[in-house]
Amino acid sequence: MKRIDLNCDLGESFGAWRMGEDAALLELVSSANIACGFHAGDPVIMQQTVGLAVARGVAIGAHVSLPDLQGFGRREMRVSADEVYAMTLYQLGALSAFCRVAGTRLAHVKPHGALYNMAARERILAEAIARAVQAFEPRLTLFGLAGSALIEAGKALGLPVAAEAFADRRYLADGSLQPRSEAGAVIADPAAAVTQALGIVRDGTVITAHGEPLTLQADTLCLHGDGAQAVQLARQLRAALEDAGVRIALPGAA
Amino acid sequence: MKRIDLNCDLGESFGAWRMGEDAALLELVSSANIACGFHAGDPVIMQQTVGLAVARGVAIGAHVSLPDLQGFGRREMRVSADEVYAMTLYQLGALSAFCRVAGTRLAHVKPHGALYNMAARERILAEAIARAVQAFEPRLTLFGLAGSALIEAGKALGLPVAAEAFADRRYLADGSLQPRSEAGAVIADPAAAVTQALGIVRDGTVITAHGEPLTLQADTLCLHGDGAQAVQLARQLRAALEDAGVRIALPGAA
Amino acid sequence: MKRIDLNCDLGESFGAWRMGEDAALLELVSSANIACGFHAGDPVIMQQTVGLAVARGVAIGAHVSLPDLQGFGRREMRVSADEVYAMTLYQLGALSAFCRVAGTRLAHVKPHGALYNMAARERILAEAIARAVQAFEPRLTLFGLAGSALIEAGKALGLPVAAEAFADRRYLADGSLQPRSEAGAVIADPAAAVTQALGIVRDGTVITAHGEPLTLQADTLCLHGDGAQAVQLARQLRAALEDAGVRIALPGAA
Amino acid sequence: MKRIDLNCDLGESFGAWRMGEDAALLELVSSANIACGFHAGDPVIMQQTVGLAVARGVAIGAHVSLPDLQGFGRREMRVSADEVYAMTLYQLGALSAFCRVAGTRLAHVKPHGALYNMAARERILAEAIARAVQAFEPRLTLFGLAGSALIEAGKALGLPVAAEAFADRRYLADGSLQPRSEAGAVIADPAAAVTQALGIVRDGTVITAHGEPLTLQADTLCLHGDGAQAVQLARQLRAALEDAGVRIALPGAA
Repeated sequence: MKRIDLNCDLGESFGAWRMGEDAALLELVSSANIACGFHAGDPVIMQQTVGLAVARGVAIGAHVSLPDLQGFGRREMRVSADEVYAMTLYQLGALSAFCRVAGTRLAHVKPHGALYNMAARERILAEAIARAVQAFEPRLTLFGLAGSALIEAGKALGLPVAAEAFADRRYLADGSLQPRSEAGAVIADPAAAVTQALGIVRDGTVITAHGEPLTLQADTLCLHGDGAQAVQLARQLRAALEDAGVRIALPGAA
Repeated sequence: MKRIDLNCDLGESFGAWRMGEDAALLELVSSANIACGFHAGDPVIMQQTVGLAVARGVAIGAHVSLPDLQGFGRREMRVSADEVYAMTLYQLGALSAFCRVAGTRLAHVKPHGALYNMAARERILAEAIARAVQAFEPRLTLFGLAGSALIEAGKALGLPVAAEAFADRRYLADGSLQPRSEAGAVIADPAAAVTQALGIVRDGTVITAHGEPLTLQADTLCLHGDGAQAVQLARQLRAALEDAGVRIALPGAA
Repeated sequence: MKRIDLNCDLGESFGAWRMGEDAALLELVSSANIACGFHAGDPVIMQQTVGLAVARGVAIGAHVSLPDLQGFGRREMRVSADEVYAMTLYQLGALSAFCRVAGTRLAHVKPHGALYNMAARERILAEAIARAVQAFEPRLTLFGLAGSALIEAGKALGLPVAAEAFADRRYLADGSLQPRSEAGAVIADPAAAVTQALGIVRDGTVITAHGEPLTLQADTLCLHGDGAQAVQLARQLRAALEDAGVRIALPGAA
Repeated sequence: MKRIDLNCDLGESFGAWRMGEDAALLELVSSANIACGFHAGDPVIMQQTVGLAVARGVAIGAHVSLPDLQGFGRREMRVSADEVYAMTLYQLGALSAFCRVAGTRLAHVKPHGALYNMAARERILAEAIARAVQAFEPRLTLFGLAGSALIEAGKALGLPVAAEAFADRRYLADGSLQPRSEAGAVIADPAAAVTQALGIVRDGTVITAHGEPLTLQADTLCLHGDGAQAVQLARQLRAALEDAGVRIALPGAA
């Protein structure tokens, strides 16, 4: 029987500003990536979000980011490997404090935004993240783009890893995502996104932006949660996966 | 045999800015209060400072603060008890991650600056800090001004507490510190500061700003580390205490 | 013929986070208080908001704040008069740059949130703001709570001032606002808010929380813009004022 | 008679942290680049630094930066041209407010750190800065690396520009600076730095890292001010230039 983890980004409000359909998404996913205060989230919001995830039985991961609230962690910054190592530890520790007092534990780590993209390409930054995770808690699962430098770095250190795939992003022949700046990079049609997700989960195959089939082994699918439409797509995706006999389960679950 | 803990604030650099005589102070103290990124410190500096403290065998505490880098955590802010609870947890977690990967553990918690003063006066904020410490790790020692609401709140929750005293600050009749804005609030003469410290540690007595003796039970003395003169005073203080047969030891040590 | 200025807070988004019904409010007000990056707003949002206000012919004011994005400028901070003077200048300058390149000029200044409340009570902080405005551009109108220390400080320096009143907040006998923490402090019933506004503008009178009439001279009314309901109340207020023959015009207009 | 402007970075303290030998440098330079709060500086420090520069008769420029206090503006960030345009305006406005109340005016603009390097290479970002300067005040002189895209962008818009050169950095054959990460990139020997400065100012020539002569037309030389040694070099440089009959004067001075 096929199975897949479903993850989404949560706790991306900040101070007086609200963002995301956290309550709706927690009904749909098995893993929640919670912002740690560097691109979004603040201590009060982190505490609340951990509480919501615990109440829904959703596994909690640290969504570690570059320090850039104004840019929502989406602007690449030329940080050093030492800085990435230390900022990863800082955020892991901060979020794990809220898990601890809520009676649960961190399950995974996923870099956010620009750090995710940088760690997919640059081995030295990928290794900095993987080393921080290993030093902090080597049983944490490292989430990264399928086929990326981050997944390689995690494997090299013996960490459990989860290769991530996207239902609504186009892939290039080398397994990287088509840049958002290019037309067609985001799959707007829900039916097409569902088809892509089923192809990945059932057959381990995705059709690239140039129409070629590409082998893609994924352990977790990313659901987006910004806006009612995104939640609607997330619901369709989950339903389609379940209809196809796919079991929704954490990466590494028996 | 009398004994006393000596503590100081460390890791108060930030980014490209340097502050404090960390290396010199680590030779003199038994407890280090390390900044957690809210009033000073950043992930790289926290990692380095924890490493230095471990190398010198100095116990590490979280120097938790209001979120105010520009004001160095010295400006009181009307934060709620819920905010204080969450920001305390966040900082405890962040610093403890660096302790964990350095093979050590947090030993204590001390609020910084304005938060220290607010928690000395306001029971509801003191309780928020004490509850956060208890929820995170109830064996941590809570440092607070001797006779303050923070010490009371810690005791009420069964936390180990350490009553803090100052060699170079004048006391008022109620045990509070004379505000820095008043003339004479800071004892500039090193000999007078040493005398005050000896009086506190040996006799449990301090002479207030108005010349009256005040009973003051202290478990830890705060050494300041800003500037060469402060380090010089710290050295004199430690030497005078040792000459008087006082043992320098962690609060609660046998 | 009676007249009144209508003002609202604008440009309170930040980075990826959206807040406020800016487009709808710009149809209803004569004066816009634009966030300057300290409690909300960032350079891109400030530029866009100034552009929107210019397009609608709405006068622009600097909504100067304490430096507290996480707290949205609503947490009082013990800043010094020197700090308030300098932070007011900084924000006046930053916003006026966007006005300049958009071919317009600042018209007024209104402190935001906690700074507004502190400047209403504390003459020394009120004077710091008034001195900054006078030094920067003495023809700017200073907005403050009717009867407050800020209005007094502005008058004392010869600045044009605009006494502000609220349709949906209860007043106490001394002209201050009933604290939001007390029941009934916010007038939830739109009809009651409209009635209070008409009483203030036409008769110069408001009924206090304790049922007594209070004389209240106002030059500008504050409209809130958070949420569809607030915009609906703003529309009703403006319509009721116009129906009552009140002219909507800038403070000081002929 | 040859002449050259001497510029340095000032006002790079932040909150409780001190940096730079501002007083010493103001004796030596004709132009001061003052931090605007994005990489260093805060409103109080900006006010003080403008006051010092005015008292010494030194021309004031805005040292505009990426928003990165923790990284001191030295980490490249993938900001858009729209973001660069808006952040330049914001900082120009903020600093000019302090000039205005001090009875002076901004004279120039120089990007700081990573933004300086990005604007030297990337025409689209260079143009964003130049357009912001032009829109704000077209008589401001734009400082940039000699031969860089920023100088080209400024010229294309008709702005006065000042080509900057460095006494203590090695050049590559294309006129760019040898990256600091490479050995020998910084000229540590004061005599060699003085020689390079004289070659640039008198002969318009510099010897590259590979030993070839390179034509280099410079309007301003950058003096560094971090540490006593840097100030010593700055003193030697100024003395050597004056001994060689070079007049220290603002760019564009008659």
